Amino acid sequence: MATKVANQPLFPMPFPAMFFLLSIIFGFGITLSDAVSQTRHYTWEVEYMFWSPDCKENLVMGINGQFPGPTIRANVGDTVVVEMINKLSTEDVVIHWHGILQKGTPWADGTASISQCATNPGESFTYQFVVDKPGTYFYHGHLGMQRAAGLYGSLIVDPEEGEKEPFHYDEEINLLLSDWWHESILKQEIGLSSSPMRWIGEPQSILINGRGQSNCSIAAKYMNMKKMEQCKLSGSEQCAPFILEVKPNKIYRIRITSTTSLSALNFAIGKHKLLVVEADGNYVQPFLTSDIDIYSGESYSVLINTDQKPSENYWVSLGIRGRDPKTPPGLTILNYLPNPVSKLPTSPPPETPKWNDYDRSKNFTFQILAAMGSPKPPLKSTRRIFLLNTQNKMNGGYTKWAINNVSLALPSTPYLGAIKIGLNHTFDQNPPPETYPEDYDINKPPPNRNTITGNGVYRFQIGEIVDVVLQNANTLNDKHSEIHPWHLPGHDFWVLGYGEGKFSSAADETKLNLKNPPLRNTVVIFPFGWTVLRFVADNPGV
Amino acid sequence: MATKVANQPLFPMPFPAMFFLLSIIFGFGITLSDAVSQTRHYTWEVEYMFWSPDCKENLVMGINGQFPGPTIRANVGDTVVVEMINKLSTEDVVIHWHGILQKGTPWADGTASISQCATNPGESFTYQFVVDKPGTYFYHGHLGMQRAAGLYGSLIVDPEEGEKEPFHYDEEINLLLSDWWHESILKQEIGLSSSPMRWIGEPQSILINGRGQSNCSIAAKYMNMKKMEQCKLSGSEQCAPFILEVKPNKIYRIRITSTTSLSALNFAIGKHKLLVVEADGNYVQPFLTSDIDIYSGESYSVLINTDQKPSENYWVSLGIRGRDPKTPPGLTILNYLPNPVSKLPTSPPPETPKWNDYDRSKNFTFQILAAMGSPKPPLKSTRRIFLLNTQNKMNGGYTKWAINNVSLALPSTPYLGAIKIGLNHTFDQNPPPETYPEDYDINKPPPNRNTITGNGVYRFQIGEIVDVVLQNANTLNDKHSEIHPWHLPGHDFWVLGYGEGKFSSAADETKLNLKNPPLRNTVVIFPFGWTVLRFVADNPGV
Repeated sequence: MATKVANQPLFPMPFPAMFFLLSIIFGFGITLSDAVSQTRHYTWEVEYMFWSPDCKENLVMGINGQFPGPTIRANVGDTVVVEMINKLSTEDVVIHWHGILQKGTPWADGTASISQCATNPGESFTYQFVVDKPGTYFYHGHLGMQRAAGLYGSLIVDPEEGEKEPFHYDEEINLLLSDWWHESILKQEIGLSSSPMRWIGEPQSILINGRGQSNCSIAAKYMNMKKMEQCKLSGSEQCAPFILEVKPNKIYRIRITSTTSLSALNFAIGKHKLLVVEADGNYVQPFLTSDIDIYSGESYSVLINTDQKPSENYWVSLGIRGRDPKTPPGLTILNYLPNPVSKLPTSPPPETPKWNDYDRSKNFTFQILAAMGSPKPPLKSTRRIFLLNTQNKMNGGYTKWAINNVSLALPSTPYLGAIKIGLNHTFDQNPPPETYPEDYDINKPPPNRNTITGNGVYRFQIGEIVDVVLQNANTLNDKHSEIHPWHLPGHDFWVLGYGEGKFSSAADETKLNLKNPPLRNTVVIFPFGWTVLRFVADNPGV
Repeated sequence: MATKVANQPLFPMPFPAMFFLLSIIFGFGITLSDAVSQTRHYTWEVEYMFWSPDCKENLVMGINGQFPGPTIRANVGDTVVVEMINKLSTEDVVIHWHGILQKGTPWADGTASISQCATNPGESFTYQFVVDKPGTYFYHGHLGMQRAAGLYGSLIVDPEEGEKEPFHYDEEINLLLSDWWHESILKQEIGLSSSPMRWIGEPQSILINGRGQSNCSIAAKYMNMKKMEQCKLSGSEQCAPFILEVKPNKIYRIRITSTTSLSALNFAIGKHKLLVVEADGNYVQPFLTSDIDIYSGESYSVLINTDQKPSENYWVSLGIRGRDPKTPPGLTILNYLPNPVSKLPTSPPPETPKWNDYDRSKNFTFQILAAMGSPKPPLKSTRRIFLLNTQNKMNGGYTKWAINNVSLALPSTPYLGAIKIGLNHTFDQNPPPETYPEDYDINKPPPNRNTITGNGVYRFQIGEIVDVVLQNANTLNDKHSEIHPWHLPGHDFWVLGYGEGKFSSAADETKLNLKNPPLRNTVVIFPFGWTVLRFVADNPGV
């Protein structure tokens, strides 16, 4: 780290001052260090097991008997080696390391049909990669819906030994968020890919570190959405909430990652403000907020000061945004020690903002800006690709998301090997379209209700500076457009801006932020809106 | 065929006379024929689909949108080519051709880890083999529990063009029997392989050609086992029974194959005797019976004469033997045309014999003898292998079946390729034990409650004449032993005999039938008993 940070309390000072301080102490870069990097070996057996994530027994895909999978913790510069043994009976498996750039190790990205063949039952695959940036990441299965089946876990990268983060905290807590259905993953998947599509419905629960409650509530008396009994839990149950144990008057870093299948989540802690300091492994200009929106694939670090009444405990609450489900909130307790955890908070859990209050969502998202000292984007791109995001039909009955009216159908031969070896017949050598028709009306359902499938790839020269315009549009239903997160493996990108309607290079160019756009690996597009990213094609791979 | 059969009615003559006639007209052998053999091409897409096999919707594994899969029909000498495309999302798949000898094509046997690597999602595998013996066969998935998921269908081989079967019939009906659970296959499988094992319970229904009823009965008023309503079915439902439509006073060949996961079945038709003429693709000495026992993997052909009162319909009934389940009987109608199918029989369905009346089961089995003219076994074997069949524990908690105290754990590299190429490290080069301790008490649970796993193989020189003594024993529960069917791919074997207790080469040798033992590909061992097989190792493969 370029800047060391003193162990000074942050929150006791007035917030505006604190912001200023954090702004100037931020800054990072790679410093050659004498720290000895380590190799961290893991041997993982992936298998199904009976589990009760939300007090109802089901199957989950676990690792070494754990759900969620073990947390990987490493320092910048370390080499992570994971020997993944597929102990499943009939299913293949791969594991993707979300947010890890895989510089020089594109084969270790863990994406079936892209970077590797999926690993067969009884076989193993060893992932090896260097972690080169501190931050909050996660890993997950990347075949079929194995992530939704529970194959995920946290991957946390600390600064190099002897280095410090550019902000102070006393302790940290790690939260991995997900949504959970009672229906088997297979039925969910076959339903979604059926003609006509069978919608899986809303999740039965929100899980915090793999724990939630579906048929009871730990805050029953406040749950007016449906009659729910107060949970009777001893704490040793698989579905007993993960308690955030804190001491009064300390600074806690809470790492929050979302690996939901469907749900955009809102996270809040009763009576505690959140200071956002990290997003997707990148430091951001700290800002205070009462709650955060987090989309699938995103991660944040927030700092909290446990400066509230020490004799009380406080709710931690998670609700769903962008959809209007009947899913009960994900709840747990911020437990001020030495209070017993059974001492429930005296006021209701924080209320999730209205599901369709997109202005509020945007307001949160627009506050995420790069910390001072962050790498700045090149001022001009050399290529701009428009990706129109539509919901469409295929072969009459199937419902598919499409980009520029092409729905990806992965080839059986992984791209990476095919391109490396020069196999031209394994996928379409014609790249997909780089734009969509100029007269496309994003406010109406697609006029052509028949998307095609394709498996062509965009190819970039090394060093190309690429803008991607993610253009949202109306779905198949009138006057309806959805929030979507997008993820780019192998690259962080600058989020240059968001806007309403159809992006126009002429009119909207000036709206792009080239000064302090945040680096992310996952970004959202808002309904009927656009998002523009810029990245440098500097990491050969697929 | 060596003997042609005139189109004469069989049943009108008195039964003893008919038996005599059938005995002398039986006989078969390979006649060089001028018939032109054909190549029969199939392209199959394997995928999951929503289906209601027993009026409750579930997922089944289907082929080309059909469940059960399409029937393959070919003539002796034909080449069957099946391009099997794996359209599953995460699961591998293979298909085994049960009863097909695969002479010269051991790679096409469709057994994962044995003859081939399982086929990955998105990939295809083409099976090609010659069918060389007329008979009633089937195919099924041979990875995990994909057969139980519904991946099966019939494979029927007719004599060469212009040749006839050595018995007369007017028409034929094909019945493929299975048992069905409402629990997902994955939960069943994970339960069985959990420590401690979770027993899946008894099947919810018995399916006839993929059709059954679980929550209602087509013979409700006779179902005293539980209160069941009369099914209201139009006939177009996926769970509407498969009706056996017959004309009065004809001879029907009914082909019956069992692909159950668990259940031994008993098959009967109200007021109609069954003349057994084929077992597992081998002609047998015809014998009359009121009902047949059929174990998983077996097939029979029976002839019936529709000589009963033509104004009535008759029940076809299937019940479970060897276990005492609450599963309702599998029922359908023998529909004498032109009666409407809605005209239910006037008497109750045939009652399944008592589940544990093993003497009755044995009595049936012992009647199965080779038809005249069938190949006879060599009079002496050159090697005798004893396989003690026990239920045992592994690593403390897992429940496993074991042979000579070894539980098979398949290697990831298929044996066939490994042995062909000479890879010595992919499996244990030491063969498994060829016998078990002399003092083993088959009437008690295993004294050593810890089986080991192994993947060694028995190796045979070509031409070796091998006896296999299948020795049953007490399970883990006191005074309990179960019926089990055994199948040997790639070979038919002679069933030389069955006996009680522990087989003794000294005392029991004389009990073996070397005169007219039946050829089978599947055979049963009775509780606390033994079964001796003989085969000639004449088909190189694994």
